[in-house]
Formats: sequence, C-alpha cells, structure tokens
Amino acid sequence: MNAMHDRAAAARWSRAQHWVGHGVGSIDTPTLVIDLDAMDRNLARMAAFAAGHGLRLRPHAKMHKSAELAQLQMAHGAVGVCVQKTDEALALAHAGVRDIYISNEVIEASKLLRLAQAVRDLPTRFSIAVDSALGVQRLAEALHSAGVSTSACLDVLVEIDVGQGRCGIAPGVPAVALAQAIAAHPALRFAGLQAYHGGAQHRRAAAERTAAMAAATHAVKVTCEALNAAGIEVPLVTGAGTGTFVIEAASGIWGELQAGSYLFMDADYAANEADPRTPAFEHALFVKTQVMSRCDAHAVCDAGHKSHAIDSGMPSVWFPNGLGYTSGGDEHGVLRAVAGAPLPALGEVVWLVPGHCDPTVNLHDLMVGVRGGLAAGRVERIVRVDARGCLG
Amino acid sequence: MNAMHDRAAAARWSRAQHWVGHGVGSIDTPTLVIDLDAMDRNLARMAAFAAGHGLRLRPHAKMHKSAELAQLQMAHGAVGVCVQKTDEALALAHAGVRDIYISNEVIEASKLLRLAQAVRDLPTRFSIAVDSALGVQRLAEALHSAGVSTSACLDVLVEIDVGQGRCGIAPGVPAVALAQAIAAHPALRFAGLQAYHGGAQHRRAAAERTAAMAAATHAVKVTCEALNAAGIEVPLVTGAGTGTFVIEAASGIWGELQAGSYLFMDADYAANEADPRTPAFEHALFVKTQVMSRCDAHAVCDAGHKSHAIDSGMPSVWFPNGLGYTSGGDEHGVLRAVAGAPLPALGEVVWLVPGHCDPTVNLHDLMVGVRGGLAAGRVERIVRVDARGCLG
Repeated sequence: MNAMHDRAAAARWSRAQHWVGHGVGSIDTPTLVIDLDAMDRNLARMAAFAAGHGLRLRPHAKMHKSAELAQLQMAHGAVGVCVQKTDEALALAHAGVRDIYISNEVIEASKLLRLAQAVRDLPTRFSIAVDSALGVQRLAEALHSAGVSTSACLDVLVEIDVGQGRCGIAPGVPAVALAQAIAAHPALRFAGLQAYHGGAQHRRAAAERTAAMAAATHAVKVTCEALNAAGIEVPLVTGAGTGTFVIEAASGIWGELQAGSYLFMDADYAANEADPRTPAFEHALFVKTQVMSRCDAHAVCDAGHKSHAIDSGMPSVWFPNGLGYTSGGDEHGVLRAVAGAPLPALGEVVWLVPGHCDPTVNLHDLMVGVRGGLAAGRVERIVRVDARGCLG
Repeated sequence: MNAMHDRAAAARWSRAQHWVGHGVGSIDTPTLVIDLDAMDRNLARMAAFAAGHGLRLRPHAKMHKSAELAQLQMAHGAVGVCVQKTDEALALAHAGVRDIYISNEVIEASKLLRLAQAVRDLPTRFSIAVDSALGVQRLAEALHSAGVSTSACLDVLVEIDVGQGRCGIAPGVPAVALAQAIAAHPALRFAGLQAYHGGAQHRRAAAERTAAMAAATHAVKVTCEALNAAGIEVPLVTGAGTGTFVIEAASGIWGELQAGSYLFMDADYAANEADPRTPAFEHALFVKTQVMSRCDAHAVCDAGHKSHAIDSGMPSVWFPNGLGYTSGGDEHGVLRAVAGAPLPALGEVVWLVPGHCDPTVNLHDLMVGVRGGLAAGRVERIVRVDARGCLG
C-alpha cells in the first residue's frame, strides 16, 4: 500500500479530532453525529430488556460497523456481536472485538480461508451460519488448510428460511442432514439455528408483524422437532431484529436476540406502529447538514444520498421544525416548508434522521459523538467506522 | 491518525494488488470491475465528439472520484474535470489533477478556507460556482484569510437554474448583480455561467429531453442577454450531462460539456430512448458477485445495496443471461430466472450493471481494471477511488 492511500480519509480523521471538546458548531457538514446521551439510554434499555427476559443479546454490528460500539454493547451485557460479511468480522476482530458471529452464508473458498486463519491466529471467538452442504464442506476444508484441527473449535448454525424468502434451507427435516454434516467434522460444532425474518420487521401494522412472526415461530418449532426426532439437540435459536424482537422474546423459542438498529433508531423503524412491549428507543444518529443554496421556494442542503442511504426512504428533518426533505440527488437535499414554517437561511444548520442506519453508516469513515444534545452540546469523541466498505 | 485507521481498506488494497496479472477469477466478490477496453472506447468516442463539435470537455469526476481516470480523460483532450465538493477537489488535487472546477455552491467558511489554502499552495487551477452574494463574499474572505491576493486568481461561474429546480439563481437579470459582485473582488474573475439540467437527462423519451433542454437553452440566452445589456461578457456557458449533452452541443450556446457517466455508462442512462446523435457508449462498470445461497426458486448473490447504489433502480444482470435481480437488502441480491433460463449454481459468478455509477463508485475504495473482457480477461491494474467518501 502506498502512502497516498486514503489521504482524504486520513485528513477527515485528523480534522475531526480537532472538534473534540468543542461545541457542535465546529462539526463540518455533512457529518454523521451520534447523540451519545440518547445512545446510552438505548443501550441501557435494551440491556435491561434482554436481562429481564433471560435472553442473550448479540447485537448486529453490520449496523454500526464499529469496534468501539461493539465493545460498549458487550460491556452492557451483550455476549458478542453479529456481522454479515467475512471482512466485517476480520475488521472488528483486528480492532479487538472478542466474539463475532457471521450470521450469513460464506461460500467462497478464499474468504473462508481468511476466516480460518483468523480462527487460528486471533483471540476472537468466531461462529458462522450455513445453509448448504457445500458451505459446510468448504468451511471444513478452509479450517484444514489453515491448519486448524482443534476439536469443536468453530460453532456453526444452520440457517432456516422463516419467511424472509432469501437465504436459509426450508424449515423441518432438511436441517437434519445439515446438522449431521456439521457434526461429522471434528473442527465444527452444530450450535443451533439461525432464524431471522428481516421482512417482518418493516411491516407497519403490529398485527402484521405478529402474524408473520407466528409463522416464523412455527417454522422454528417444526425444525427443532425434526432435529430432536433425529436425536440432535438444538443448543440455541438466534435471530430477531429491532422491529420484532419483542415477539421473538415472548416466544420462548429464541434464546438470543440480534437486534442492532435499537442503538441508533432510524426513521423507518420509528414509522412502525409501536408494540407496547418495545422499549422507548430514541433517535441517536443524525446527519448534520447545512443550507448551501436558497431561493424563495426552497432551501438546498449539502447532504444527498452519498451522505445517507435512501433504501428505506428519504431522511426526515429533526430540526428545525416544519421542513420536508426531498431528494436533490447524490450531493443535495431539497428542503421545503410545510404548514407555513420558515425556510432556513443560507448557511443554517439542519439535522436529519436517516431512513435506514446501516447503509448510512457505511457511507462514512467516522461518527462524531456529541454529549449534551444537538443544539448546544459538545463533541466528546470520534467513533471510527472500522468495517466501512467491508463487502467481501 | 493512529495506525489502526482504515486497516480494512489497507487490507483490501493489498489483496487487490495480488490480482494484477491474473484472470478475472482471482477477483474477490463483490468487487467493482472496469472493462478497460470498453472504457477506452467510451473515452475515445467522447473525445472525438467534443473535438468534432469544437467544444471543451470537462467530465464530471464526481462519477469516478479517481485521479487516475481524471488524468486519463485530460490526456484525451479534456481541459480538466468537475467535482461537486470541496474535499473531492482537494483529494484529486493532492493526487495530481491540475484543473478542477467545483460546479456547485460552497457556503461554509471553513470549507472555503481549505479551498483557498489549496489555491495558494497547490499547482492545481481551481474554479467554482456561486449562486448567492453571500457565497461570493465568503469566497473573497477565504482567499483574503489565506493570503491569496493575486489579481483574478480564481474563476467563478454563476449558476442559473435552467429547470432542475435545485440550486442556481433565476435566469435573466439576477445574474447581473452577482457577476458584478464577483468582478468587484480583485481575487475573483467572472468566468461564465453554470447551466446544468440534471433532471432532463433521465427523461426516457428523447422528445421530452429535447423539450426540457429547449427551455434550458432559452433560460441561458435570456441570462446572456441581460449580462450583455449590462456590458458584461459571458466567457463560457458550461453544463450538460451524459443524457443530454448532444442537445447542449447542438445549441451553439454551451461551450463546455460536463458529462461524466459516459465513461462507464450505467443501466439508467442505457434505458433512455437513444438520441441518434449520441455516440454508442458501452457499459464499462460492473459488480462482480457470486451466488452464496441457493434454493429451487431463486439464487442469492453477495451484492446488496452496500455494494451498489439503488437510487436509479436495481442493477441489471449482465451475465449469465435470463436473470432478474431484486433487492435482498444491504448485503444480498435475489436472482430469479426469467423465461426459463437456468438459475446459477452455488458459487457461480454473476456480473451486474449498476443502476447509477456515481453513488456506486462512492461505496468502494478501488475498482479492478480488466483487459480482454469479463469472461476470460486479466486484471491489468487497480484504480483507486481517491475521493471516496469526500462529502465536505
């Protein structure tokens, strides 16, 4: 790697360090800002919920991609974190996270070899999901190639499709052969079922989420029964996201919750009809932006969809009140006043709540942690997005 | 900056260097791949078009964010490049690009100071757009603060809104006061009009694009007349994107074309009804992905919308034939067979054409340049995305 690599990212990091100790006014735009007080409250609420239900909490770090925040969650009782990608796991492990579950399938031999080498060399405890015999075989081969031969060194979970219609084998009997294939390799241990229904979480009506999760619960039960009938114990059922985890928690079936977005809460989850069992999570992630063009009809801010993801819709405007955001393309947002509110002036700061946290965070190298509120708080620390861009 | 910064990006860069000289099979997934032969043909076609029309070409580097590609465009006759953000300009200037126009408004004093320091310290020729008196004033103040006092050292263009409904002052008389405000500062030079209609480019029917650009052309004419009536010459009208530049070129009004996407061509521009005057640009940017989960009904590939932007729709499948891509979320794509085509097997490689190049490139640190086609070519070089994440 030559010295020019990521000069721009290095400059951003260095500039952000100068904001520490200063007011929010010092933060350049557009920048991702964490309201640390709100985040800490979300952290405590989720920790209390999991503890109160006797459930393991393994938050999804694909959301924040930050070793610091993963370790903060683990300091608050989480057993570890989930990720979706091999390189996310490696980035967080190298940055000190000690228990990482890849809740997704990896089929490419070179990726599995990277993982196996990390299993061999790093103090982190890794685990992974599979949904195919080929996946099990390649995983075993990779561990063998890396010279990992310790008995039962890697926990492997079988993913079943509980309604998402994406990855995972069909519920019921197909899990038996896969669990047996895992158990046949001395370096692998069948550690349970991955049962996650991402689609259910974003259904607006609580009744629809409940119905979808009833079907998912049935799918898990049928699979556990098939495994038990074959003499295979299911050590753990893991899954659940921020939109539905209260349902999984109440099921008596899931033993581990993977919710991640609760830490920041995005506009999309906030738009769901509330389930009264869900803790009152607050928005904790914002884009600080400012008006860089202005006419009588609208103001244009400097945050477009290179600053925030739009897969779950446009960001909402947190402050000032009475503004609607519409897309202005990659680098701009168009702000219009609703119900007679005044339009912000040229240079005025506007705070946005991203529609979807996960892909928004992935657009940034760093997040600025603010203590004391967005209006008059101070920058406490800069949080690194260690696994930004880890796609492999 | 500490040593842990962007360890993951450094690992990716180092890994990619090992692919050079090897076949496309060596490239990890998901990765952005440039078909260098197709790109070179696009480069030559656009250079010939601009030369044939006696027009300056200043491609938009917000698309590729790469100093190497900017310099390649300049070696093929481009006078320089455009960017949208101060930090894009600085990243490219530090990486050796010598003529950079910020075709967008910058209002924040700290950004303008960074720019002014670069004007003072770097051998790059910078220029910038404005659409407000405050913008002119702050620009002049920044140059003063940085100790830049050379007469007419920075070219400033006045942006007029020619139908986009975003930035820019209203066409006609308002440009006069702004041009006079620029001319009043010895360190600034009024260099012409920024007249870009992004919205027109994505209208599917050629007739609709023609109609929108007729209105835009009228807006530019009216503004030039107002300026001329006030005794102000308009040195240049600059604008035009890949979807409409043949119209601007035919107008006799625009002197400089800013089209950028032509280099890679995305799925969205390809979906436009063709204008027979447009050179036959080819797709040159692809996402290499592979199937990591498979059931009878569909295959799931490892590229979701953290790998490619979806603001202009989902990517299309380039190869194998007969597959449709639907969203599988941040990390997955769901592939279904159309018209009885076979579904790809677990581990099989699939090539995607991104819906929109610009925000797709911004998700990646690097692009892999392949020579000899995607099927059996070899990796020639790794292209750095120097201005990735440059939002400020």
